[in-house]
Amino acid sequence: MSEQVGVAVLGLGTIGGEVARTIVADDRLRLVAALARRLESANRAGIDPSLFGVDGAAIVDNPDVQVVVEVLGGEQPAADLMIRALANGKHVVTANKEAVSKNLPAILAAARDGDAAFLCEASVGGGIPLFVSLKQIMETNRIERIRGIVNGTTNYILWKMETEGTAYADALAQAQELGYAEPDPTADVEGFDSSYKLAILASLISGRHVRPEEIDRTGISTVTAEDIEEAKLKGGTVRLIASAERAGDNLLLRVAPTFVSGDDLFSLVSANYNAVEIVGDNVGPVMLHGQGAGPKPTASAILSDVFEAIRSGSAATPKVML
Amino acid sequence: MSEQVGVAVLGLGTIGGEVARTIVADDRLRLVAALARRLESANRAGIDPSLFGVDGAAIVDNPDVQVVVEVLGGEQPAADLMIRALANGKHVVTANKEAVSKNLPAILAAARDGDAAFLCEASVGGGIPLFVSLKQIMETNRIERIRGIVNGTTNYILWKMETEGTAYADALAQAQELGYAEPDPTADVEGFDSSYKLAILASLISGRHVRPEEIDRTGISTVTAEDIEEAKLKGGTVRLIASAERAGDNLLLRVAPTFVSGDDLFSLVSANYNAVEIVGDNVGPVMLHGQGAGPKPTASAILSDVFEAIRSGSAATPKVML
Repeated sequence: MSEQVGVAVLGLGTIGGEVARTIVADDRLRLVAALARRLESANRAGIDPSLFGVDGAAIVDNPDVQVVVEVLGGEQPAADLMIRALANGKHVVTANKEAVSKNLPAILAAARDGDAAFLCEASVGGGIPLFVSLKQIMETNRIERIRGIVNGTTNYILWKMETEGTAYADALAQAQELGYAEPDPTADVEGFDSSYKLAILASLISGRHVRPEEIDRTGISTVTAEDIEEAKLKGGTVRLIASAERAGDNLLLRVAPTFVSGDDLFSLVSANYNAVEIVGDNVGPVMLHGQGAGPKPTASAILSDVFEAIRSGSAATPKVML
Repeated sequence: MSEQVGVAVLGLGTIGGEVARTIVADDRLRLVAALARRLESANRAGIDPSLFGVDGAAIVDNPDVQVVVEVLGGEQPAADLMIRALANGKHVVTANKEAVSKNLPAILAAARDGDAAFLCEASVGGGIPLFVSLKQIMETNRIERIRGIVNGTTNYILWKMETEGTAYADALAQAQELGYAEPDPTADVEGFDSSYKLAILASLISGRHVRPEEIDRTGISTVTAEDIEEAKLKGGTVRLIASAERAGDNLLLRVAPTFVSGDDLFSLVSANYNAVEIVGDNVGPVMLHGQGAGPKPTASAILSDVFEAIRSGSAATPKVML
């Protein structure tokens, strides 16, 4: 790459700010525009205010932009902007599990129409090299099942309850103090976030659009200190497990607090870490473990995707029929 | 790929036989030739005897061969055949950690000369998607350290000693009965195999040729039942850990039986499984766990590399200066 590649960042929250600063610091890339609601976000992120804009469509249509990084969060306007960018022939990299899980067919169709790359490594498992591993395994395996601890907030809460005997409400309050949980923690603690991530994984392994609503979902808000104590007495613990398992032509899809025995690697997934196990018919079980969130791990995964998009173009887009 | 890609397999042992049968069964590939010492190997592998040959150089020079899979094991003639194939412009895929670790610069130079792909995913960690993950992480991280349980035989022995209180000699005998250990177990139990694998990983993360001899190596043959008991009393266990850690401009390189505490994921690596932890400055620690050996997992990794070589050509070769 002798010339710098123009990148736009949609969203300047903690992740977007980190991504934008990394792009500015990388001489292979040029930050062309950054979308946020208010100029303060650009200032807080340390971004040249002249790059700041409030009009997403204009940024996505900008001819100097070759890659769009979408980290707005939420379904809209994120999904529409990604679809518009892809149809325009711009590569899109995102960490947005909600927008992707609800709109995957339209997104992949736009990527096909625009002959552009769509990559979402950071949408599940943060910095864990999950999709690149899944893609490699899928090439020579039928995936029998997949299970994961894919939400760091709930894992932190359950781990606090396990290691300190804390009640659910106290562990949640601690997670909120540390910034691991939102003031309104519903999306995490009721399992919505996990179901978005599982829907993306299940769509990739099944080749059909698995909608988040299809998933049998139970959160952790009803888990008590006694439940955890009981699990410990049985030599294990409790984790919020998202799982997809083949049953004939169907997938059994579930997010639920689950007993994990003490000899299972998942029992040692601590704090806000994530883990995903992929079981292939040839390779057997493969487990990946790492930081599922946080600005630096997530930005690291996003930047990898940006370079993969530049390198491989539309060939980088997952080859699934939806 | 509308036309079948011609593949030669060098070596028809357990792994080579599995790879050869998988190639025959895959309509994207055509098995052109198979190298073995004796015709019985081809018969045992269920391979058309007309494809069997004893002349490695002739197979590697065959114009119908586009990809060479090398699973002979041992340094020579494997290394010379790989170098010859690459210089001829044929892609090479291998699981041979000894030949690679001792000859990496010459192999990569031949790949450059021949504008061919060289891939060795199966040489470390069997079916674990290790190199594809490492490559992704390295793109946006400086690797601070790497540690792994990369030898299934020794892990099986230590795990048996841990879980059944078995003496070393008895656990080794069991591993030999199960076919996990060779009749002469030296390469595994004295840590040579682990040091070859660590040398490859260390070469990739440092960009210089780390020779296996540079590694401070201790095997497991002197580990006693009492050592294991003592580790268990301290709440942990013993594993053969291969590690590379940056210390200024140098790498500290070590293979040694090591105390692993009970809250470390490595303490739950059981039977003949492998695990590798990569620590990047942005992504933090990422751990991968899976089957490190066995015909199906290894063949699965080899076939992934074959398709990656076909798809990406010389761009698939690790970009390291050696």
